[in-house]
Amino acid sequence: MTIFSQKSCFIILALIISPSVSATRASKFQAEKPCKRMVLYYHDKLFDGTDKDKANATSATVVNASKLGNSYFGMLVVFNDPITNDDKFHSPPVAKAQGFYFYDRKDTYTAWFAYTLVFNSSEHKGTLNIMGADLMTEKTRDLSVVGGTGDFFMARGIATFQTDTFQGLYYFRLKMDIKLYECY
Amino acid sequence: MTIFSQKSCFIILALIISPSVSATRASKFQAEKPCKRMVLYYHDKLFDGTDKDKANATSATVVNASKLGNSYFGMLVVFNDPITNDDKFHSPPVAKAQGFYFYDRKDTYTAWFAYTLVFNSSEHKGTLNIMGADLMTEKTRDLSVVGGTGDFFMARGIATFQTDTFQGLYYFRLKMDIKLYECY
Amino acid sequence: MTIFSQKSCFIILALIISPSVSATRASKFQAEKPCKRMVLYYHDKLFDGTDKDKANATSATVVNASKLGNSYFGMLVVFNDPITNDDKFHSPPVAKAQGFYFYDRKDTYTAWFAYTLVFNSSEHKGTLNIMGADLMTEKTRDLSVVGGTGDFFMARGIATFQTDTFQGLYYFRLKMDIKLYECY
Repeated sequence: MTIFSQKSCFIILALIISPSVSATRASKFQAEKPCKRMVLYYHDKLFDGTDKDKANATSATVVNASKLGNSYFGMLVVFNDPITNDDKFHSPPVAKAQGFYFYDRKDTYTAWFAYTLVFNSSEHKGTLNIMGADLMTEKTRDLSVVGGTGDFFMARGIATFQTDTFQGLYYFRLKMDIKLYECY
Repeated sequence: MTIFSQKSCFIILALIISPSVSATRASKFQAEKPCKRMVLYYHDKLFDGTDKDKANATSATVVNASKLGNSYFGMLVVFNDPITNDDKFHSPPVAKAQGFYFYDRKDTYTAWFAYTLVFNSSEHKGTLNIMGADLMTEKTRDLSVVGGTGDFFMARGIATFQTDTFQGLYYFRLKMDIKLYECY
Repeated sequence: MTIFSQKSCFIILALIISPSVSATRASKFQAEKPCKRMVLYYHDKLFDGTDKDKANATSATVVNASKLGNSYFGMLVVFNDPITNDDKFHSPPVAKAQGFYFYDRKDTYTAWFAYTLVFNSSEHKGTLNIMGADLMTEKTRDLSVVGGTGDFFMARGIATFQTDTFQGLYYFRLKMDIKLYECY
């Protein structure tokens, strides 16, 4: 009886453990089930070069566009941009986005971003590091959250960009849907 | 009897569960067994500044070399380069590589890359984000695939570069051996 | 009896397996227990533009600061900096740091880094890829180790910066406390 019971145990164990372990590997992340999600607004107010814009501007062109094409190919902007919970530029920022983007297509507008979301509020302290292509002609586009620190220790995930509005080169607002799939 | 059987269960459980879990940690990835592998060719055709090169060029120097050393230290190139399945520049691209590189050594040629492979074909839709040092004097050199989106959701891995050919500064071709070890 | 024993097994199994699997997920990494740790010193000796500095300089300004603010907003530096085990610039380097940083704040000094630690010694061969914000006004600040190659195959972790000393713009030394939480 005892022996039989142990054998049953083995079989049951095999059935229970194997799928659970492989399931952990195969479907470790489910796109629809992030462990943390934040919808944030990113405001980029590009310096127009005038003295009166210095107080408001949050980013500056540091490398001018090349002569390749007519869509700012190579123009590089460094930013320290406010991140808000709603779409208002003057709402209190919940984070700053520090980094850069540059335009990288000859015939239409696409950009490439690398930046850090720096959180220093009562709600979150820490950073998220993000990089990827901003294919501006797509309604939504996904970048990678490649690491995190502080409250976001070792996080990974996806940052989905959506253009919320823009006024030429000098102001644009992105809705950033941050979905973390690794949280610790 | 029942009690004894339960104890046996415990012991067996401990033996079965512990090694399987630690094995998952220790050998989660094996360098020789990527879950996805793609050998691709990257073509960089640097804009020479002339009007007639505008149609063909796929990248442009946006920051000139500094005066430090004689190997282009600091020269920064933004690219939107075609990726093909074979080594022919005019083969239909299976992806685009959007990003930048810069030279970063005084006494010989080394570069640093950060870019996104953008796939938009019948075979793959999505992106891979890659960064790392291109130690051009080595036969092969490894960069990190730090994230992915779409078909490559949350991927990580290694991108091995090998110089396939080059013609001065104005054309070079890399064989990129992309090995993903995290696939979902 | 047997049936009862199997049921007990099930219950015990559920109790044992569930927490162990979720524990693997929830506390996979513990901040105080990296699988690999290295305390290294990073020396940045910025080229001052004179011929006599060419031999010693390890980095160069390749993009000048914008006119936004008074703290070098947008100034971009490419570096190939020695990494030593102690705080002496002339100690034999155990690695090189290849990458760039730029200043990104109008009213005080903060920077953003992306670089590769290139190890090529008897102790370590391989690279670590790192990116993140350097909030220079904080005593310590964390960046992300987003990938690794060679001996650091697929590594991830945290790089904690601490300013060890600085002499204006032209020399600074960072203590980099590299903690890896994913090692293979």
